[in-house]
Amino acid sequence: MDLLNKTIPAIGRLDYALMEKVQKKLDNLTKPQGSLGRLEDLAKHIAGITSKESPSLRHKVVFTLAGDHGVTEDKVSAYPKEVTAQMVYNFLRGGAGINVLARQVGARVIVVDIGIASVLDIKDYRQDITSVFKDCKINLGTRNFTKGPAMTREEAIRSLEAGIRLVEEELPKGADIIGTGDMGIGNTTSSSAITAVLTGKDVADVTGRGTGIDDAIFNNKVSVIKKAIEVNKPDPDDALDVLQKVGGYEIGGIAGIILGSAKNRIPVVIDGFISGAGALIATRLAPQVRNFIIASHCSAERGHKSALDLMGLSPLLDLDLRLGEGTGSAIAMHLCESAVRILNEMATFESAGVSKKID
Amino acid sequence: MDLLNKTIPAIGRLDYALMEKVQKKLDNLTKPQGSLGRLEDLAKHIAGITSKESPSLRHKVVFTLAGDHGVTEDKVSAYPKEVTAQMVYNFLRGGAGINVLARQVGARVIVVDIGIASVLDIKDYRQDITSVFKDCKINLGTRNFTKGPAMTREEAIRSLEAGIRLVEEELPKGADIIGTGDMGIGNTTSSSAITAVLTGKDVADVTGRGTGIDDAIFNNKVSVIKKAIEVNKPDPDDALDVLQKVGGYEIGGIAGIILGSAKNRIPVVIDGFISGAGALIATRLAPQVRNFIIASHCSAERGHKSALDLMGLSPLLDLDLRLGEGTGSAIAMHLCESAVRILNEMATFESAGVSKKID
Repeated sequence: MDLLNKTIPAIGRLDYALMEKVQKKLDNLTKPQGSLGRLEDLAKHIAGITSKESPSLRHKVVFTLAGDHGVTEDKVSAYPKEVTAQMVYNFLRGGAGINVLARQVGARVIVVDIGIASVLDIKDYRQDITSVFKDCKINLGTRNFTKGPAMTREEAIRSLEAGIRLVEEELPKGADIIGTGDMGIGNTTSSSAITAVLTGKDVADVTGRGTGIDDAIFNNKVSVIKKAIEVNKPDPDDALDVLQKVGGYEIGGIAGIILGSAKNRIPVVIDGFISGAGALIATRLAPQVRNFIIASHCSAERGHKSALDLMGLSPLLDLDLRLGEGTGSAIAMHLCESAVRILNEMATFESAGVSKKID
Repeated sequence: MDLLNKTIPAIGRLDYALMEKVQKKLDNLTKPQGSLGRLEDLAKHIAGITSKESPSLRHKVVFTLAGDHGVTEDKVSAYPKEVTAQMVYNFLRGGAGINVLARQVGARVIVVDIGIASVLDIKDYRQDITSVFKDCKINLGTRNFTKGPAMTREEAIRSLEAGIRLVEEELPKGADIIGTGDMGIGNTTSSSAITAVLTGKDVADVTGRGTGIDDAIFNNKVSVIKKAIEVNKPDPDDALDVLQKVGGYEIGGIAGIILGSAKNRIPVVIDGFISGAGALIATRLAPQVRNFIIASHCSAERGHKSALDLMGLSPLLDLDLRLGEGTGSAIAMHLCESAVRILNEMATFESAGVSKKID
């Protein structure tokens, strides 16, 4: 618990004085004031997070955390749970969506086993040049949370601290912007449970079709989540309790990455619904962390918007994505880079000899 | 008129057979079907436009067309008209928004004088490595359309044909995707007039604040546009008549670029409100051109949404942009490239050894 207890109070405030200075700079670039809309807000936001007047986003990292969920034995997904491990091998060979999109923006992908239900054989896989494997396995999947807590409180803390540690281990290699991502069959079920508990919404209103389930599985999924909440009675005021009882290891790890990024003043771009659930846990543990989060997109998965609304986060993109893995984070990193390039590279009215607005 | 008359009938249909094939390929990539949302639609769309199963978007071109508007003498803008030429020099030194965003996606910028109200002195300017100047000047700005047509019918045709020719001149250098952009003080006034005439909407409903005008100038702008329509009575069924009477040279040029791109089966990404007005002209001249257009974003400028709705185009981004220059096009090119990379680079369930959905 030491690392968590040290990290949370070390999360600071945005650098508002610098943000004011950056706003003045943006207003003097050769464009009508505010005409680059959200890119200008984003530039200012990133300056405020990093405390740098001309932030560089050269080193980009996406963490894709993989974990399994005991609740899959209750048939909540369209895919067998073996897919979690199979997709990790796919990540390491560079063939998944996140590999493609991370390569495009020049981000490295850190693939993390934080709780896959099988023992992986990584030696056999020639790792993709852009992706690296890390073993942070806490357990062989969570327990089925319809029968009791998904994990122990100690495991919940370990998952959070694993996330913090993942961030800190990347610092020597350079990490100017961090993206979160997930892989875990069954993890929309866990995320819906977390979202229902923390937003106070009805389970059915925050439960979606995940990887693409039919009506029968969907109705079962809603019942399973209701049962999990009934059996475990997670305390909405205690994020650790919620994570322990209805969470997943990758969701705890994502929450830890968010906390660790914020502590180190690194902008953290969250992906879709599962990262949103991780962000809900992180912001409940440390409300000030919210200011360090950039919401990449609004997922097609029901419930994500409720999570973003609760945190007051406005997503950059709305592309009907629901893949996870960090794909939305990777795409949004391009916009983050656009924003800082605007701030760093555009000419001013003076330097370009362009007439200003008529008063 | 020859080039225009040859171009319009040469615009074909999307390759629907190939799009079906591509859909099957997308459905077999290692992700739940449809989970990359609009990126998958975009990949299929680009395949259908290019008639290529694995399209490459290596060569990216943004055309930024600059022209002046006689109507600026009626005080419709917050900036003096000299800014049009000043910004062209800024484009050539690489200091404008479009330079920054085009560099980021690796697009070259073709800066075109199609009707600036002054004679430029380009020799003095060391051109930016990513931007090239082209002189296609038709006239020293349009005439004030509150007093009669903005241009002659022959000039309107010349502006369209200049656009077509710009595309064809880039073909030997490679042009896998083309973006449109504009620079012209007063051109939101012209675009609102075109949009009002072609959508049938009230002038006030399609008129915005442009570069940032106050209430007094805004009310004047609405009156000026109403007067222009009253004086000229443009025929909504005759796009050339509309372009001639209330258009601008850069808007005609953009329409021509759209037609020329479509004829050559090159995806054409349109920027905001001014490019939208150009697209309205192009689609009125040749309705089938609509299938070749990718709408980059929904502009903060009022009226743009009405134009997109009329054409049935759904913008990829909504970032509150209103700069023009092709900035939205450049940003959206990243998403277009994401889409084709997904199609070209992702592993299939078979190749990756990943289990498929349970039936």
